[in-house]
Amino acid sequence: MSKEILEQYRQRFRCELDRVVDFWLKYSHDKQYGGFFTCIGKDGKVYDELKYVWLQGRQVWMYCRLYRTMERFRRPEILEAAKAGGAFLQRFARVPSVGSPWKCAFCLTRDGRAVKVQRTIFSECFYIMAMDELARVTGDQDMQSEAEKMMDQLVHWVRVDPSGLGRPQMPGDPPVNSMAVPMMLLCLLNQLSEGRPVLAQKYGELGDWCVKQILQHIQRDGAAILENVSPEGKELPGCQGRLQNPGHALEAGWFLLQYAQEQGDAQLQRTAVDKFMEVPFLSGWDKQHGGLFYFLDVDGHCPTQLEWNMKLWWPHCEALIAYLMAYTHSREDMLLQRFSQVYDYTFSHFSDAEHGEWFGYLNQQGSVALDFKGGPFKGFFHVPRCLYMCERLLDSLLDGKCKA
Amino acid sequence: MSKEILEQYRQRFRCELDRVVDFWLKYSHDKQYGGFFTCIGKDGKVYDELKYVWLQGRQVWMYCRLYRTMERFRRPEILEAAKAGGAFLQRFARVPSVGSPWKCAFCLTRDGRAVKVQRTIFSECFYIMAMDELARVTGDQDMQSEAEKMMDQLVHWVRVDPSGLGRPQMPGDPPVNSMAVPMMLLCLLNQLSEGRPVLAQKYGELGDWCVKQILQHIQRDGAAILENVSPEGKELPGCQGRLQNPGHALEAGWFLLQYAQEQGDAQLQRTAVDKFMEVPFLSGWDKQHGGLFYFLDVDGHCPTQLEWNMKLWWPHCEALIAYLMAYTHSREDMLLQRFSQVYDYTFSHFSDAEHGEWFGYLNQQGSVALDFKGGPFKGFFHVPRCLYMCERLLDSLLDGKCKA
Repeated sequence: MSKEILEQYRQRFRCELDRVVDFWLKYSHDKQYGGFFTCIGKDGKVYDELKYVWLQGRQVWMYCRLYRTMERFRRPEILEAAKAGGAFLQRFARVPSVGSPWKCAFCLTRDGRAVKVQRTIFSECFYIMAMDELARVTGDQDMQSEAEKMMDQLVHWVRVDPSGLGRPQMPGDPPVNSMAVPMMLLCLLNQLSEGRPVLAQKYGELGDWCVKQILQHIQRDGAAILENVSPEGKELPGCQGRLQNPGHALEAGWFLLQYAQEQGDAQLQRTAVDKFMEVPFLSGWDKQHGGLFYFLDVDGHCPTQLEWNMKLWWPHCEALIAYLMAYTHSREDMLLQRFSQVYDYTFSHFSDAEHGEWFGYLNQQGSVALDFKGGPFKGFFHVPRCLYMCERLLDSLLDGKCKA
Repeated sequence: MSKEILEQYRQRFRCELDRVVDFWLKYSHDKQYGGFFTCIGKDGKVYDELKYVWLQGRQVWMYCRLYRTMERFRRPEILEAAKAGGAFLQRFARVPSVGSPWKCAFCLTRDGRAVKVQRTIFSECFYIMAMDELARVTGDQDMQSEAEKMMDQLVHWVRVDPSGLGRPQMPGDPPVNSMAVPMMLLCLLNQLSEGRPVLAQKYGELGDWCVKQILQHIQRDGAAILENVSPEGKELPGCQGRLQNPGHALEAGWFLLQYAQEQGDAQLQRTAVDKFMEVPFLSGWDKQHGGLFYFLDVDGHCPTQLEWNMKLWWPHCEALIAYLMAYTHSREDMLLQRFSQVYDYTFSHFSDAEHGEWFGYLNQQGSVALDFKGGPFKGFFHVPRCLYMCERLLDSLLDGKCKA
């Protein structure tokens, strides 16, 4: 593909990133209590004031990452909003009453009262990401230390004893290797160890464990990536065992590729591309209407998730990162073709030319089904992370100046 | 409308009920462990063996109700399947380890091991319905007594102290009057007190309380039925407070109408029809594509539920019962028109002429989006209950022989 086309992509990503940042700067800041509104309608109007901890943490992280690594986003208003979001999280996110001093709420009221606690690790994951990236920007050592301590707790919950999460162990519900868990831990150790050799060494064994756990999801003689497998890496019975989530597999793909690149592991790079990028595309792309399905059953049964055939924004974001990163590493034409195909669908269907930002939820045919820009699960994260990473990858391709 | 048309309706309901019963008799029985498979594909094939307690209880109840009240279903295979389902529930549904001797699991493995426990009352509700109706058929006094004791526990959880349900009370999540709770209690006391004056008297005050709680959902000066309100009957902030569920309001409508009829309360009958049948139809019917939306926001925001614009089978089942019951009571033409409109949509979109039973989940345009006949939330309940009740209402209209 010609340099001119790559340059056009870069311009589009750069421009889109600016627009998306502007949207959230304009509409999402809670100047009274700190933190961010994330339930934001198509034209920017806040339709609910609840504060979801995943999204609070993600927005702090994304603001700080942009501030730290992209010159044009080193703006005081971005740093101030990130600090206010971090302070809100530090003050309100943790709910030690639930049983552990590190357990975080899933959702808070506007003024920080806990609404709901999930019995999983994900609020804590995004809390750690926020604290670590904010500490990198501000130099706050206590904050970095807090992130590391919570990471230790997370690893304990995942690898030693999950009882602190509060979910009773049921005899018919044995432990599962759910892809989200090793993916998140791999993402976190990448976050925490960047530029810190001591931590990179501390987390070395954990990284290998995460990769092994993720690779267990390659099933059916390499023909499928399954979302849930047994702790021993066997296929599980029923719908849970047959579930495929193509966007999640693609996200795992670029996590693995990034890790393999850092480790200099050529075989893992190959596996990341062949299994976690090509396989989910072949099963997950809707040949009739375009776009990636949200869920599929590997045996062709209808998934029981009502939204299985919807086209969600985030799998497309992850696919764009995955294919462009893989192309940047290998320069295989096929990968750029995949990128272009996803790009064409994504920018023509999700991006809102009128009010900015992206719609999140399309029906199978590609029409907008839910017209808000932010909601309980869509905040300032997948879209800007995709735009940011793709812009940097295109910088690297065009100028050779930085790696993602 | 002419008697001939009502007769045509009756024939169709009767024939459809026979086909639906045949489908579940043929495909859903687990002859090895007792109980029922409910994850059943479009052609009857079981695609998952998990046993959802709501659906186990509902199928026992429905089998027994048909057996007890409709001559043509007084068949040994129906009774035997119901007994096996009841035995499965009695043996496996309760999970006292969770904190209360009456707490039931939400989901079990095929052989009865608990998979998941919800921190709500609904598994227990359907357990009670199953036990009470089965006791009516078999004459088992202990079973009836068990149903009554669990009902006492339910009422305690709802009206006195919910802590036994296991959900920690969060400071940002004050108690809510969620319509499902008083609806279910009203349904249960109707079940338990049928033909039992002593129980009817015992539950008299509870019935009044349920009605009051349900009527609190009439909001916006009577222009809307909202799914969640405060315990004092005030509108709640945000998405939760603005949520409308038209099918649920219609179901509440016929529960109220039935109760009002038994109590001889003409004013409540009027309210049931005007507020719980007309209001949700005006807001909930999709004027473009037909059918009832699943969720709506009273202020016109997009709901955050991904399935908000889908057409689900059960709201249409409830609408058919509601309008036909209301017409049977008042003979107002408008109500029969509503019934006909819902009937035309429902029978042309949900019923599967090829393999029998109904599809459960259509997209907004009315195409089948999930093609299974049973799943984690769709079992042998709403469809046969609708067909059964409408057939009896039509009997009453045509022959004047029984009231619903």
